[in-house]
Amino acid sequence: MCLSLSCVILPAKLMYLTLRSCTPVAAMGSHSTNMRVKLPLFCLLLEAITIILFAIFVRYDHETDAKAWHHENVSDYENDFYYRYASFQDVHTMIFIGFGFLMTFLKRYGFSSVAFNFLIASFGLQWSTLIQGFFHGFHNGKIHVGIESMINADFCTGAVLISFGALLGKTSPVQLIVMTLFEVTLFGINEYIILNIVGAKDAGGSMTIHTFGAYFGLVVSRVLYRPHLEKSRNREGSVYHSDLFAMIGTIYLWMFWPSFNSAITAHGDDQHRTVMNTYYSLAACTLATFAMSSLLNREGKLDMVHIQNAALAGGVAVGTSAEMMLTPFGAMIAGSFAGIISTLGYKFLTPILDSKLKIQDTCGVHNLHGMPGILGALIGVIVAFTATADIYGEGMSDVFPLIADTTRTAKSQAMYQGLALLVALGFALVGGTIVGFILKLSIFGAPSDAECFDDSLYWEVPEEEGHIAVHTEDPDQQTQA
Amino acid sequence: MCLSLSCVILPAKLMYLTLRSCTPVAAMGSHSTNMRVKLPLFCLLLEAITIILFAIFVRYDHETDAKAWHHENVSDYENDFYYRYASFQDVHTMIFIGFGFLMTFLKRYGFSSVAFNFLIASFGLQWSTLIQGFFHGFHNGKIHVGIESMINADFCTGAVLISFGALLGKTSPVQLIVMTLFEVTLFGINEYIILNIVGAKDAGGSMTIHTFGAYFGLVVSRVLYRPHLEKSRNREGSVYHSDLFAMIGTIYLWMFWPSFNSAITAHGDDQHRTVMNTYYSLAACTLATFAMSSLLNREGKLDMVHIQNAALAGGVAVGTSAEMMLTPFGAMIAGSFAGIISTLGYKFLTPILDSKLKIQDTCGVHNLHGMPGILGALIGVIVAFTATADIYGEGMSDVFPLIADTTRTAKSQAMYQGLALLVALGFALVGGTIVGFILKLSIFGAPSDAECFDDSLYWEVPEEEGHIAVHTEDPDQQTQA
Amino acid sequence: MCLSLSCVILPAKLMYLTLRSCTPVAAMGSHSTNMRVKLPLFCLLLEAITIILFAIFVRYDHETDAKAWHHENVSDYENDFYYRYASFQDVHTMIFIGFGFLMTFLKRYGFSSVAFNFLIASFGLQWSTLIQGFFHGFHNGKIHVGIESMINADFCTGAVLISFGALLGKTSPVQLIVMTLFEVTLFGINEYIILNIVGAKDAGGSMTIHTFGAYFGLVVSRVLYRPHLEKSRNREGSVYHSDLFAMIGTIYLWMFWPSFNSAITAHGDDQHRTVMNTYYSLAACTLATFAMSSLLNREGKLDMVHIQNAALAGGVAVGTSAEMMLTPFGAMIAGSFAGIISTLGYKFLTPILDSKLKIQDTCGVHNLHGMPGILGALIGVIVAFTATADIYGEGMSDVFPLIADTTRTAKSQAMYQGLALLVALGFALVGGTIVGFILKLSIFGAPSDAECFDDSLYWEVPEEEGHIAVHTEDPDQQTQA
Repeated sequence: MCLSLSCVILPAKLMYLTLRSCTPVAAMGSHSTNMRVKLPLFCLLLEAITIILFAIFVRYDHETDAKAWHHENVSDYENDFYYRYASFQDVHTMIFIGFGFLMTFLKRYGFSSVAFNFLIASFGLQWSTLIQGFFHGFHNGKIHVGIESMINADFCTGAVLISFGALLGKTSPVQLIVMTLFEVTLFGINEYIILNIVGAKDAGGSMTIHTFGAYFGLVVSRVLYRPHLEKSRNREGSVYHSDLFAMIGTIYLWMFWPSFNSAITAHGDDQHRTVMNTYYSLAACTLATFAMSSLLNREGKLDMVHIQNAALAGGVAVGTSAEMMLTPFGAMIAGSFAGIISTLGYKFLTPILDSKLKIQDTCGVHNLHGMPGILGALIGVIVAFTATADIYGEGMSDVFPLIADTTRTAKSQAMYQGLALLVALGFALVGGTIVGFILKLSIFGAPSDAECFDDSLYWEVPEEEGHIAVHTEDPDQQTQA
Repeated sequence: MCLSLSCVILPAKLMYLTLRSCTPVAAMGSHSTNMRVKLPLFCLLLEAITIILFAIFVRYDHETDAKAWHHENVSDYENDFYYRYASFQDVHTMIFIGFGFLMTFLKRYGFSSVAFNFLIASFGLQWSTLIQGFFHGFHNGKIHVGIESMINADFCTGAVLISFGALLGKTSPVQLIVMTLFEVTLFGINEYIILNIVGAKDAGGSMTIHTFGAYFGLVVSRVLYRPHLEKSRNREGSVYHSDLFAMIGTIYLWMFWPSFNSAITAHGDDQHRTVMNTYYSLAACTLATFAMSSLLNREGKLDMVHIQNAALAGGVAVGTSAEMMLTPFGAMIAGSFAGIISTLGYKFLTPILDSKLKIQDTCGVHNLHGMPGILGALIGVIVAFTATADIYGEGMSDVFPLIADTTRTAKSQAMYQGLALLVALGFALVGGTIVGFILKLSIFGAPSDAECFDDSLYWEVPEEEGHIAVHTEDPDQQTQA
Repeated sequence: MCLSLSCVILPAKLMYLTLRSCTPVAAMGSHSTNMRVKLPLFCLLLEAITIILFAIFVRYDHETDAKAWHHENVSDYENDFYYRYASFQDVHTMIFIGFGFLMTFLKRYGFSSVAFNFLIASFGLQWSTLIQGFFHGFHNGKIHVGIESMINADFCTGAVLISFGALLGKTSPVQLIVMTLFEVTLFGINEYIILNIVGAKDAGGSMTIHTFGAYFGLVVSRVLYRPHLEKSRNREGSVYHSDLFAMIGTIYLWMFWPSFNSAITAHGDDQHRTVMNTYYSLAACTLATFAMSSLLNREGKLDMVHIQNAALAGGVAVGTSAEMMLTPFGAMIAGSFAGIISTLGYKFLTPILDSKLKIQDTCGVHNLHGMPGILGALIGVIVAFTATADIYGEGMSDVFPLIADTTRTAKSQAMYQGLALLVALGFALVGGTIVGFILKLSIFGAPSDAECFDDSLYWEVPEEEGHIAVHTEDPDQQTQA
């Protein structure tokens, strides 16, 4: 443990030294938002450190190692790969397509949304392999990796992408990479405490991923509050086709959420049940969301923001409890409730967070991940509380091992589930505050209040659709104008 | 059975009462097309009824229940989840991305296409879990659910989405939900008769899903005939990027159709063979579609409508026969033929249906699902007719259990396959007529003939792409104008 | 072998006769680029020939045949379907969504990009089932097909689509079909020599797919050099939303590349390890690509071309070695290096290829598939060189069967890996030259230099987005103009 902690701290230290040393270099750029030196430096340096740490610590586990696997006397179909790879690819699709395209709703920030999502998830999954490895997969001084560590690494990046949603359009890619570095590290510690010390269950990450990621991002957004963001508000909306791109993200998140919640649950009935509970929760959530969206509009018109986001809250709300004997109708109640509070949040809470609490939450992650995450944790408390040997039979050892081996009663397990929520909130609030202040350092090149939500700050942006029409269809008119 | 029937009828009755009682409430809206009261009411009421029925009837099956699964002495990899979950997710993707985006081809109806698809599929899968459960999974007064019931529920929504395709742009979301309620119920009865009473085979649903869904939708469209639809025709076409969004739908449907046809066939060779037959049929269909599309145009130019739709007919055409020993070249002949008739249908039949038969078929589901569905049923008749013990060996019991146990000869099985097609057509025509007249009730808020194909009736629609260009690139010109 | 060769040559002969005979027919069209006769003729004729050859040669293998499978005394879960179907669908998605949408970046060529990709992949997978079947799956005069032949057929179309990338926008669909016919045939021969005669390993196709496909396409592009392409250069760029469509292709290729490289490796640890190595390589490649893209721009701005393409080079670079004991950090080094050389290639090499070598490489396949393919082959040489019994244990027989049975040493295996690269390059250069000259025949209807990158040559193209805005929002202004 001592060794592993030093390994976590070492790269952070390295970063600090780099950071101080690169200040004069960055000053060479004409603008502080110029990424030419900073972005390559951070990407290459962090990749190099990651590779070195991988070379030292990371090894194939017994299911990916040619020698070790063939040494075991088991059939190929018992390799964990066949139990989890389809789920992994669904989770992978949620992370890169789902989160990436969900955020393309902004009219002028589509490139940054999908591509910065791509960048920080790519870095985050490598870094979390190390961090989670130190805490969960450390054997004889080595981190053993396989399909489960890949899923967990993707999960961890999910938390970072949720935080990214709160900050969307208001941070430089270097700020995002630095945030990823620290948030992944804190995620690993928080997750270790919740799962291994508190002994809570949270297969789909209502607490470890959604609550932590959302409140972390909201606190960072508070620290980075922009008083003159109205200068960029004209770019904060969507256009017709950007909303359709965002729906690609929504639908993929919605469809594959059953895989997300079940990806690392126990084989057999556990994965099967988790999938089914999540499926019902989401279906019910969708109806509740459409109902509320129409009800909250004066003319009964639906709002794409609600459909794109609140319809997903059903997946978050059963993140903790879907592997439990939640029952299908229980899942549907959870999902309906999540859809209702999430839509209400978008309508009433987001404006208040902005105006009163100075929290500018671009994607409304408080409504999609924050409140539904807390709801999910509380549902976990309730369902754990009602666990009995009569309901779970011998399956108790998969779902609640500490109840099965009589270390805990259902009541005490429920209490620890509640404690875990407090841990997640605490880590998010304290961690987000610290990281927010780090991100304020001018060296990371935050955009000015007038440059937010604008791809052209970071991208070579091609011409507009509107202009093709003019060019190709009516060149004369243009010349006259 | 008596009990189960009453459970089907009960909610329908409830709806009727609701419907009558809510008439004065709806009148409060300034326009009859205002959804503010109707849509929330229907969504929340139906969701509540569904949850209550789930609480009473739906239980985990022996593969999703913690106690039951651990009680069985089998290995985890024998859980049906691992045989079918990858297929389920492919089917799920076809339903929500495939159907949803295929219909985004309309220039001003993309939000409604993808989102109403999302809404009615979400309701449909819950409702069909109940309906199909009463007919197929009813044990000791309870409906047992697992991965297979999830796949079947998604299948059932497929039929509803096909009908939606015929009506696209011309119905309110409340009409669609009401249609889903009734069509799912009729689907369940029709499917039960075809599979359990007639004893026909139809794994990929050429009859139960495609023929039924298409002709049901066409008859509803006939009943809801709009004599002045020309007022909305200027919005019935596509724009460049809406056609690309639609291709996302097309390609996903095309790629995952092998999973659709094989998702509930027997384990082992059956799933494997069904996938392969469908794969070859679709590949051949694509070439036939490109050939016909070019041939039918004066300048040899291809038409996106054909590529988006007719290329998929190969999946429909082997829906019944793909699990049989169709042979790869047989699948390719079926697919080629389907592509040809489907393209011819788009070119010649759709205009005739509209002008002569007063059937306004927005997506041309008659060409993609109707005719290819009938073709698929007939191919099933032929392939069943040729079944021999020499070809199937002991595999006969999986594909044709009634031939295997000598209840039927191949000839009589073929006859029953043909009978099943008549049942499907009969249910579609009679059911569609009745449901069509129900949907005519003014309470459901159908749009006027001049308001069709227009998102702005139901959505808060953001500004246009074209306008960004003007806004951001040349503000001066705008001020002058 | 004699028989199989004659079967390959026969259809080629038929095509030649057709080609000569149809010349006067084609002349009936007003323009040589009119596809009305040529495209239907080629599609239908080739489909007919394919169906006849399938009827004669193709049979279900023992895992898809009802009788044969039930005759074997094995459990259903041992059917290869369950080991490979999820991977197959990922590969299928890469071929049809990945390649198809990656090429939609062009502002006026989106229809052709995704749809010609669809057409030639659909033909290619049928044709390669025959060609690869003659070489790899020929038993007692019949080709046996199952999930592995389906994956291999998709792989083969991948090489054709890579070549298509070099030619994008500059060829008629008939040229593409003819190229597919010949390239698939050459691919089969090349692959047979590399895998079965040279005895090299290349599970992910760094040599057989990427190197072969890229250099084949580049040589064809050289032969078809267009001196006046500047007439079409105004359509060679992207627009804002076309770049987002292309990102759909990119992300799917990136996410599912682990499935591509592992789809046909041995069961168990091999598939598992291949997936993991590819995953790490791609993640590292992404960081390197972002770093280089920013570094190479004067203002530090990122270029979508790099992100869309170079971030994928990490998958190509471990195509040969990912199934070997590459180690995770080895994969990350490979990926980083691939991202760097690929981005440098886009910046510096593509313009030189165009101006000095007269190679017009629309998608820059030399940077994404060519150089990384060679790099991948060389990494394979190095990793094979270091193979020892101590590292692989009994797993050696899966990865290097010829080392395991002492036919070869690690050094000689490495030498043969290098030889295989030369074979792939030789086949690509000679084959590409011959096929390039065939494609020059005027009968195939190549577009003129001024008609390149334009959908309207082959498609009924709908109105523009820009125009909707004007039509629907401000009709008065339009009338005035």
